Amino acid sequence: MLQTRSAKRTAAAAVKIATDMVKEGLISKDEALQRVEPAQVEQLLLPRFDQKEVDKARSAGRYLAKGLNASPGAATGRAVFDADRAVALKGQKQLVVLVRPETSPDDFHGMVAATGILTARGGSTSHAAVVARGLGLPCVAGVAALDIDLQKREMRVGGKVIKEGDAISIDGTTGEVFAGELPTIAANFREEKELIELLSWADKRRRLGVWVNADTPGECRLARELGAEGVGLARTEHMFREAERLPIVQDMILAGDTAGRKRALAKLLPFQQGDFNEMFEAMDGLPVVIRLIDPPLHEFLREYADINVEIAVAQATGRNGTELEKKVRIFRRLEQLHEDNPMLGLRGCRLLLVYPEILEMQIRAILGAAIDSAEKGIKAKPEIMMPLVGTMGELDRLAAQVTEVAQQVFKERGKRVEYKFGTMIEIPRACIIADQIATKTEFFSFGTNDLTQTVLGISRDDAQKSFLTRYVEEKIIPADPFQVLDRDGVGAMMRMAVERGRKTKPGLKIGICGEHAGEPSSVALCHELGLTYVSPSTYRVPVARLAAAQAALAGGAARDR
Amino acid sequence: MLQTRSAKRTAAAAVKIATDMVKEGLISKDEALQRVEPAQVEQLLLPRFDQKEVDKARSAGRYLAKGLNASPGAATGRAVFDADRAVALKGQKQLVVLVRPETSPDDFHGMVAATGILTARGGSTSHAAVVARGLGLPCVAGVAALDIDLQKREMRVGGKVIKEGDAISIDGTTGEVFAGELPTIAANFREEKELIELLSWADKRRRLGVWVNADTPGECRLARELGAEGVGLARTEHMFREAERLPIVQDMILAGDTAGRKRALAKLLPFQQGDFNEMFEAMDGLPVVIRLIDPPLHEFLREYADINVEIAVAQATGRNGTELEKKVRIFRRLEQLHEDNPMLGLRGCRLLLVYPEILEMQIRAILGAAIDSAEKGIKAKPEIMMPLVGTMGELDRLAAQVTEVAQQVFKERGKRVEYKFGTMIEIPRACIIADQIATKTEFFSFGTNDLTQTVLGISRDDAQKSFLTRYVEEKIIPADPFQVLDRDGVGAMMRMAVERGRKTKPGLKIGICGEHAGEPSSVALCHELGLTYVSPSTYRVPVARLAAAQAALAGGAARDR
Repeated sequence: MLQTRSAKRTAAAAVKIATDMVKEGLISKDEALQRVEPAQVEQLLLPRFDQKEVDKARSAGRYLAKGLNASPGAATGRAVFDADRAVALKGQKQLVVLVRPETSPDDFHGMVAATGILTARGGSTSHAAVVARGLGLPCVAGVAALDIDLQKREMRVGGKVIKEGDAISIDGTTGEVFAGELPTIAANFREEKELIELLSWADKRRRLGVWVNADTPGECRLARELGAEGVGLARTEHMFREAERLPIVQDMILAGDTAGRKRALAKLLPFQQGDFNEMFEAMDGLPVVIRLIDPPLHEFLREYADINVEIAVAQATGRNGTELEKKVRIFRRLEQLHEDNPMLGLRGCRLLLVYPEILEMQIRAILGAAIDSAEKGIKAKPEIMMPLVGTMGELDRLAAQVTEVAQQVFKERGKRVEYKFGTMIEIPRACIIADQIATKTEFFSFGTNDLTQTVLGISRDDAQKSFLTRYVEEKIIPADPFQVLDRDGVGAMMRMAVERGRKTKPGLKIGICGEHAGEPSSVALCHELGLTYVSPSTYRVPVARLAAAQAALAGGAARDR
Repeated sequence: MLQTRSAKRTAAAAVKIATDMVKEGLISKDEALQRVEPAQVEQLLLPRFDQKEVDKARSAGRYLAKGLNASPGAATGRAVFDADRAVALKGQKQLVVLVRPETSPDDFHGMVAATGILTARGGSTSHAAVVARGLGLPCVAGVAALDIDLQKREMRVGGKVIKEGDAISIDGTTGEVFAGELPTIAANFREEKELIELLSWADKRRRLGVWVNADTPGECRLARELGAEGVGLARTEHMFREAERLPIVQDMILAGDTAGRKRALAKLLPFQQGDFNEMFEAMDGLPVVIRLIDPPLHEFLREYADINVEIAVAQATGRNGTELEKKVRIFRRLEQLHEDNPMLGLRGCRLLLVYPEILEMQIRAILGAAIDSAEKGIKAKPEIMMPLVGTMGELDRLAAQVTEVAQQVFKERGKRVEYKFGTMIEIPRACIIADQIATKTEFFSFGTNDLTQTVLGISRDDAQKSFLTRYVEEKIIPADPFQVLDRDGVGAMMRMAVERGRKTKPGLKIGICGEHAGEPSSVALCHELGLTYVSPSTYRVPVARLAAAQAALAGGAARDR
């Protein structure tokens, strides 16, 4: 009877029924843990629309369109069609829904400022979807019915014209879009007493640790409340993208010589050190894994993507403003930096080896902040993580450089702090030589986004629009490998890395910080592989806690820590 | 005595001495095989300066200087002192020798445009040397006597002033530099009697077959003369690039619907079938492995790379010719096709699954030509090869489609021919599931260019200019993995594929058709792994024959076929 109704149960009811049945002695705690779906836990923590208001809006003709439910939750706010305007309106204390044909890293500051994201193009692994899930923002993507006119700052959809500033509401759980404001009901984890109890039972069963991917002190505090036991991935480049810092980062890149880069990096140092100080404070006593800069430098120059067009037009029309010379200079540098396949290019530790001054600044910021924290009585536990390592030649040099900078910082400050040194495992070669890598590192963290890209030879950003969606639809592959870990391929390489790494160093700490860390069947695979922890995005921490417990119960394993 | 002179021996002398000593009974044939370096065999087949002309130039006082013989071969062209000028002169159909104090990644585009490279500084692992060898360009490096004045665009050397545009000649085999043009002579394999004899001994020792990568009937004939025992890779897309065909291919791509694509493909069919007819005739009785289309479609539209600039300028200046509308249409399609990382995008078998009409045309052309050949009494042995397979879902569908088209062709022509069906093994996942892939295929061929890119997460085109050369110079890695097979990484994945493939199908035919197939230490690795054959580029066929024999001798293995 209960079984047949399960599809209709709301998430809240599922949790309540399960915990009530335990209290009534009808089922065991383990049975309760197995009766709630991890996806239901995620929904419980998201703001949602009041169903009565949704029905009302629908009958009032305010329903506009439906797209892909790319990141769950409900959001309402003023429609805005570019990132800078989103930031400006946020500054005026307005709630904003950012609407774009599709998003790119240039829109990041606007996405952070928004309460929800709506795009006309892109699938579940599009930039918009992935970033929105990372930020815990509702996102409806790939709404083909949207006809956006960026010039006029308006869109046509469902027979209506929505102008910039008009209110819209999006439901990332259902994919629906409405005109006007719909009141949202905020979730409050602290009030979800039954869920908190259920998850406390989960914690006793799970063997996997649950950490979190977090880039800001706010995310850290929230994640801790949701049960995160550490930060498994802090992406330093996200800190580079904030408004006041981006121009300094761009100066560094455009400098073109070491002295110029060092001047810019000296300006960035206090920002980064400040960020780390706040994060260490938020995570007081818990480990924080900080990944050094990862993306190719040209990602910070996307606003100049059409500069060649601007130059050509200026030259053709003779309107050669004073800006032209600067533009030509920027264009030349962009040409130097251009890569046909940036995903496989100058990024990650390669960047740190070519520009060691970036590594130096970042290590100074991390260890400087750890010392600052210690002086304030805060227990910082920094773990320095190198991205994209594939050879021992790279790792040996990186380890030596980190040690050298650390010694300098300790000497200058007259104080030492503990830190760990580890690597991402995100290209196949790193899995193959994991036994060697383990000789020089204290932890591994699987970057399963990149590992999936390289093991399968599939670019995440491109594949969705061109063939991956079709592959899933036609059952050529069982699921999108960027959502659900590819057990036979990527999983096999992970198993190799775990076995080889722990052969060198039994008990080596091994985590996962890719998107998969919050997806239940992928969490189960991580459990099977014997990983130490999973590190999902903030709102998926409770999901991972339950999924990890279910994996342990399925495997008959008791929690052994 | 001979030992001490070895550095001075020319390649021709090395071969002659080794064969003479056998005839005089001083050494065995096996010893002779071990005394000649495979690289020397390659040098014998490179274009070189006519010795008489060299002597003449020397007595006319045109000898300028000597440096390091950094990359072999002879080149002559106009001296140019910066990369942009090299590109410009190349655009005017001029042969160019790029002269620099030393090269850096910024010079890469100029190096590609040059016929040879000359530098004043740098050794055998300098940027210039490494890049030149990678590009197969002659290079003389570290000529300390060069006094280059970049401002004046001239150099002083050997008491002479060479200005930009003056002809010079460099010999990358000897390291010598001359003023003026020196005529180069192509090598003639038939006249190299001693080499032919030495290689006949090699053939008795080697266990590896030596096939060839060839895209034209002319290459096939030459390769057969050089000893190739089959075509290991015919790249059908190279046939698409020829002048009269490219517009049809572009029509197909721009069509944007199946009907339009089919119309264009119908026009391409006779061209492809004609190509295969000629290749089968040239390789009469020997296998020809034909890879279906591999590159992303936008590679055929490179001439439109700046079309957005043209459109913007036309719009800004109001000079909207009748062409504008067409250009906008092409630009829209380009935007649809655009990929951030095309190497990991819609290409290879993904393209064939999304556009099955391309697969149909290619299978019709191959099997149609095989039937044509049979009717002319020629023994065609076509082997159909699928690129970029990574999953069984792809392979199952591809195999079914090929069988279906084959049945249609056989029915239409009233005649059956034999053909084999196999896959490239070029992404890590294919190595992992090689046991499954072998259930559906009759051969594997390692695409080690792509496999190196994915196992290492390195884009070949981008990495060389940005960090790979530096990695080699600073000994972060022992050699450029795109030149010398990465034994610990790529080699380990190849070993996995061989073991798993042959577990399913003992004796499975496994070849290699990447660039590495002609590099001696990589050939040795292929021997160790038990591959069936190597398939290098045409001029490296003799190199591979000798290297394969040396590998067999080093392993103590006798030829067992």
